Amino acid sequence: MAIVTVTRRMRFNAAHRVHNPALSDEENVRIFGKCNNPNGHGHNYALEVAVRGPVDERTGYVIDLGLLRDVVEREVIEKTDHRNFNIDVDYMRGINPTTENIVVEMWRVLAPVVQPGQLIRLRLWETENNYVEYEGE
Amino acid sequence: MAIVTVTRRMRFNAAHRVHNPALSDEENVRIFGKCNNPNGHGHNYALEVAVRGPVDERTGYVIDLGLLRDVVEREVIEKTDHRNFNIDVDYMRGINPTTENIVVEMWRVLAPVVQPGQLIRLRLWETENNYVEYEGE
Amino acid sequence: MAIVTVTRRMRFNAAHRVHNPALSDEENVRIFGKCNNPNGHGHNYALEVAVRGPVDERTGYVIDLGLLRDVVEREVIEKTDHRNFNIDVDYMRGINPTTENIVVEMWRVLAPVVQPGQLIRLRLWETENNYVEYEGE
Amino acid sequence: MAIVTVTRRMRFNAAHRVHNPALSDEENVRIFGKCNNPNGHGHNYALEVAVRGPVDERTGYVIDLGLLRDVVEREVIEKTDHRNFNIDVDYMRGINPTTENIVVEMWRVLAPVVQPGQLIRLRLWETENNYVEYEGE
Amino acid sequence: MAIVTVTRRMRFNAAHRVHNPALSDEENVRIFGKCNNPNGHGHNYALEVAVRGPVDERTGYVIDLGLLRDVVEREVIEKTDHRNFNIDVDYMRGINPTTENIVVEMWRVLAPVVQPGQLIRLRLWETENNYVEYEGE
Amino acid sequence: MAIVTVTRRMRFNAAHRVHNPALSDEENVRIFGKCNNPNGHGHNYALEVAVRGPVDERTGYVIDLGLLRDVVEREVIEKTDHRNFNIDVDYMRGINPTTENIVVEMWRVLAPVVQPGQLIRLRLWETENNYVEYEGE
Repeated sequence: MAIVTVTRRMRFNAAHRVHNPALSDEENVRIFGKCNNPNGHGHNYALEVAVRGPVDERTGYVIDLGLLRDVVEREVIEKTDHRNFNIDVDYMRGINPTTENIVVEMWRVLAPVVQPGQLIRLRLWETENNYVEYEGE
Repeated sequence: MAIVTVTRRMRFNAAHRVHNPALSDEENVRIFGKCNNPNGHGHNYALEVAVRGPVDERTGYVIDLGLLRDVVEREVIEKTDHRNFNIDVDYMRGINPTTENIVVEMWRVLAPVVQPGQLIRLRLWETENNYVEYEGE
Repeated sequence: MAIVTVTRRMRFNAAHRVHNPALSDEENVRIFGKCNNPNGHGHNYALEVAVRGPVDERTGYVIDLGLLRDVVEREVIEKTDHRNFNIDVDYMRGINPTTENIVVEMWRVLAPVVQPGQLIRLRLWETENNYVEYEGE
Repeated sequence: MAIVTVTRRMRFNAAHRVHNPALSDEENVRIFGKCNNPNGHGHNYALEVAVRGPVDERTGYVIDLGLLRDVVEREVIEKTDHRNFNIDVDYMRGINPTTENIVVEMWRVLAPVVQPGQLIRLRLWETENNYVEYEGE
Repeated sequence: MAIVTVTRRMRFNAAHRVHNPALSDEENVRIFGKCNNPNGHGHNYALEVAVRGPVDERTGYVIDLGLLRDVVEREVIEKTDHRNFNIDVDYMRGINPTTENIVVEMWRVLAPVVQPGQLIRLRLWETENNYVEYEGE
Repeated sequence: MAIVTVTRRMRFNAAHRVHNPALSDEENVRIFGKCNNPNGHGHNYALEVAVRGPVDERTGYVIDLGLLRDVVEREVIEKTDHRNFNIDVDYMRGINPTTENIVVEMWRVLAPVVQPGQLIRLRLWETENNYVEYEGE
């Protein structure tokens, strides 16, 4: 039985301010520069959710992409789209919303609930020139 | 002498909240829905600046795209990139930051300072699926 | 009051066979080549719907893009997405589904129902290298 | 000698109906929804063919991408482009044309004939938001 | 009979050096900067060819896009692809290869030979952020 | 501490001629075809630089993407952008500028100077349909 990886790309828009409250304001400005703007900025994020597993003989699917979309929509997108990462998003509470930290927290939310197949990679695009990838390590 | 239109695409990231302070909170929610989220959301905007004019025989250019980039950078992008449209951007003061209103205000800033050639169109992409165009009417 | 054009891009997938039943099979093959394959082929189409009008002072919108999306979804996309243009799509009955003919028929469906503002252009992408535009002439 | 992976992207258009003849019509509708439409739908597919191997000192190539293109064109694209996966494509005979099943069968066709270098990944895009990957497992 | 515009996008790669031999070397450097590098640089250009006309009742086409592709391939692409604009391209002889000048010369080549329909616009992309448009004026 | 991969995409334009001086002119033409054009051609290249490492608890970054951009700009882009690979680029001296050879030489330049984190992949796009990847093997 062949092992295939299927990926679904989903999009959301959000505001964020890159800021570590454990540091002084001066350090925040020095480290994060314009990304530390007090009133925030924002992005059109794209999230690619990759699931790997055997192709089901009956359906020809690793996972029904409609079901995958519904799970990701419910667990991650609805809580994030048109929101502010620093204030509105429960799974980011107390966490500095860098792209790296966002992708790790999304993994913690999605890894236990995606099935059949196994979540094997999240790729999160912040702009058309920057993206991060996390594989659960 | 041939008349050509040259276009330069530039990008910036910003937060905004679609909100008309002249309306009640209930009306704002009813009209703008999730775009009215009090803590804002954001986008990777792309701005296409189109300049039309005769091709200069000496340079083969309508306008030097490096100079065009510098003008747009200084007049619009620097004031907007990594900012919050509702709070940080002087040319949007008191104006509800819908994409339509943003593109019109950017025109007002850029039309007098772009030359040689004539600014003939601004196209502003809010997401990969939505854009607005303004030609100065 | 500024006059702005807003555009919404929407996508759908469909099968079609380019075929004119008024011609002989030989002529159909000669004119349409592989696009005349009896069992059809298909595309990921993208439709750009452009609406032009004054910016409403109260909303800052030409037209609420959510409402525009809903109208296009109901009138055109639902009847077309995951369908076969030659068999399943009522507004194309008896019409050879070339991209040109599709865009004209979509215009006939959408022009009377899009408002506020005026439908001024439909751009229909058949592939990433081919598109057609219709402005109602 | 450095080991490099080279990838060539190729495109084709095809119709398909997701349908498992071993199941009842009711089950097919329940599992595959609108993808089971009896008259089919279609896509602009993009296939990325990745070949890995040492860089040849004489040519500076892992594999001449022109030769790779010709092999993939002859073995896969010509048999598929502007066709119907359920009826016209010999290497899919009797197989439900989900994206997963298509990519596995394309691998079976291409893996033995691609050389020099080794076919190490096929990535097949069905839409701009969905793709599958197969590495021969 | 509906009037539709059809557009075909084609790609080619070429080297060029932006240089006006009527100017001194110092002026060339001052005006064109790094684009004047003596050994040239290059681009992946994309050319969009737009043809406007009535939809033929028999074919459902404004112009057969296969024929349009063949004409553009023969008259423009074959003479340009994998070439150096300053040395190898006959229709650019003696002309400074700015994007503006290239698009005007391509128009002169294509306007007389494209039919049925009328060539109404050429859009030439030099990079993903810069393009020029010419409509024959 | 989570291990994340961050990727930055950067672009440059360059001319090149695929040519191995150790071979005869006839062999060069036979092997490289139009890519061997004596006066060169060119591309808009895109380079994706992937760096892998633990997320720093203080910054929430694997590596500050601004610093990464500056290093790649200084070490690779400035020496290459708007240049001719066969003549102007020091790190390619004496090397046939195929995409495979370019990506390997860029790795040699970047691997020692990228930090914190580890350079784990370079992906170099020559056109929108061709790219190569190198991971240091």
